[in-house]
Amino acid sequence: MTEADFLAALRRLPLHAGAHGLTDDAAHLGDLILTKDMVVAGVHFLPDDPPADVAWKLVATNLSDLAAKGAVPLGVMLGYPIGEEAWDRAFLAGLDEVLRTFGCPLLGGDTVKLPPDAPRILSLTALGRSAHAPRRDGARAGDGLWITGTIGDAGAGLAIAQGAAGPASLLARYRRPIPRLAEGQALAPIVHAMMDVSDGLLIDARRMASASGLAVTIDLADVPVSDDLKAFGHDALTAATAGDDYELLFACDGEPPVAATRIGTFATGEGLHPLQNGQPIPLPDRLGYQH
Amino acid sequence: MTEADFLAALRRLPLHAGAHGLTDDAAHLGDLILTKDMVVAGVHFLPDDPPADVAWKLVATNLSDLAAKGAVPLGVMLGYPIGEEAWDRAFLAGLDEVLRTFGCPLLGGDTVKLPPDAPRILSLTALGRSAHAPRRDGARAGDGLWITGTIGDAGAGLAIAQGAAGPASLLARYRRPIPRLAEGQALAPIVHAMMDVSDGLLIDARRMASASGLAVTIDLADVPVSDDLKAFGHDALTAATAGDDYELLFACDGEPPVAATRIGTFATGEGLHPLQNGQPIPLPDRLGYQH
Repeated sequence: MTEADFLAALRRLPLHAGAHGLTDDAAHLGDLILTKDMVVAGVHFLPDDPPADVAWKLVATNLSDLAAKGAVPLGVMLGYPIGEEAWDRAFLAGLDEVLRTFGCPLLGGDTVKLPPDAPRILSLTALGRSAHAPRRDGARAGDGLWITGTIGDAGAGLAIAQGAAGPASLLARYRRPIPRLAEGQALAPIVHAMMDVSDGLLIDARRMASASGLAVTIDLADVPVSDDLKAFGHDALTAATAGDDYELLFACDGEPPVAATRIGTFATGEGLHPLQNGQPIPLPDRLGYQH
Repeated sequence: MTEADFLAALRRLPLHAGAHGLTDDAAHLGDLILTKDMVVAGVHFLPDDPPADVAWKLVATNLSDLAAKGAVPLGVMLGYPIGEEAWDRAFLAGLDEVLRTFGCPLLGGDTVKLPPDAPRILSLTALGRSAHAPRRDGARAGDGLWITGTIGDAGAGLAIAQGAAGPASLLARYRRPIPRLAEGQALAPIVHAMMDVSDGLLIDARRMASASGLAVTIDLADVPVSDDLKAFGHDALTAATAGDDYELLFACDGEPPVAATRIGTFATGEGLHPLQNGQPIPLPDRLGYQH
């Protein structure tokens, strides 16, 4: 089945109201926020990514889903395939580091033994608490579209992980993303919609607009890119379609209370309308990572 | 690494207090109970088990962990590798059936695409709520050891799934276990210790005694076995070491408020002491499934 068919079929099952029709990255159970990821070697991470970085990224990307809800992390449940001693030890060291860095304890989980030829597959469930969890469907016409941090660094980092020459700072953005927990907590009570950018700025912005029943513009000239990325040679369009950024994308009116860049505007209508210095440009063929 | 080494290493990470040092099947977050399983084709289920039964068992065994805490299920998060159309559709039908049967909605999850040669791996996190969640370490000297239902049917069912001749009733006990939710909710406020039997009655009873710092007897003549199992030819010792029962094993004084069988007694000391009609018998080499 395709993912779309499978999700459509899941939506015909008994769903919790807090599942929001499986349209969001996280579920709500009262003020509890839940998110779950499975990652597969060769699909979601490179088989030769350092195991400590795999641990970091597995936790950090789930905490990024919590950040987009303004949640304070409560704990994680890990599903882990015990295998090669050195890999396991390095993974545990990275897990220790990421849990301590973000003050998020281990709650439990399960370990399994995989058949010898199976790719490494890991699973994580993260739990957090948020009194004001925004969704992605609440943007209003006239809202600004804002993004934290810089975009595209992780995409360059992936190219570097795959052999391109480039600085460690970009590689770190790919391997060790920093979930925007503090920003998410500050923004959650005041934004109209929020999500983290995982598949690419353009595709995720279009998803927010579509969920909100609106059109949105993005001016590529306003997309924040780092000096390292410019030196690496990626342009704003490459950056805005790369994905793996784990920055917070949000809709609000007025100025947000955190460092962020306004990159566009919501309006009545539909679709994503890219601009370059205020002038419409054609929609690129590829907006980001499509599942 | 061995599972024991890996768990020891996990215990040196930042642990949530509700993880109970990773000594329990479920974690506590206030009155919320959390449990997580990963299952692998060829390890935890047979590659030719019907997909609807794989779905049923994945949910039912996690709900059994909740039952052992006296919890009311709140929802599940599914991690699923989308693959072959027919398998996926049959899995979804079984998922629908098990969620409806136990009144437990889907909260969310994640889907992945596995490489073509990878074994099917599924993950489930189940959440429930319990005001009186017993643990496995609270048995007291003088407590009776009790078990719900009958033991060993699923072990015979596994043999039937692997080709032995036998009745559908036993096969169903292996493929479609029934979590003892109502019994768990009735027992939780009054038992001193409770767990579900997944690895075998003898090994799980020894774990409860060890966690409680006590010795325990089990009289094999008192172990409840079904007529079907007797007809199949499995004796009480085979039944008590087979596993996959998902019955509730508990310690209490006096008579419990649910249908159950007293099979032993806790006492000061340590270890599992099997009896046959009140006479000590040697400890079998194999007590159940060792991870």
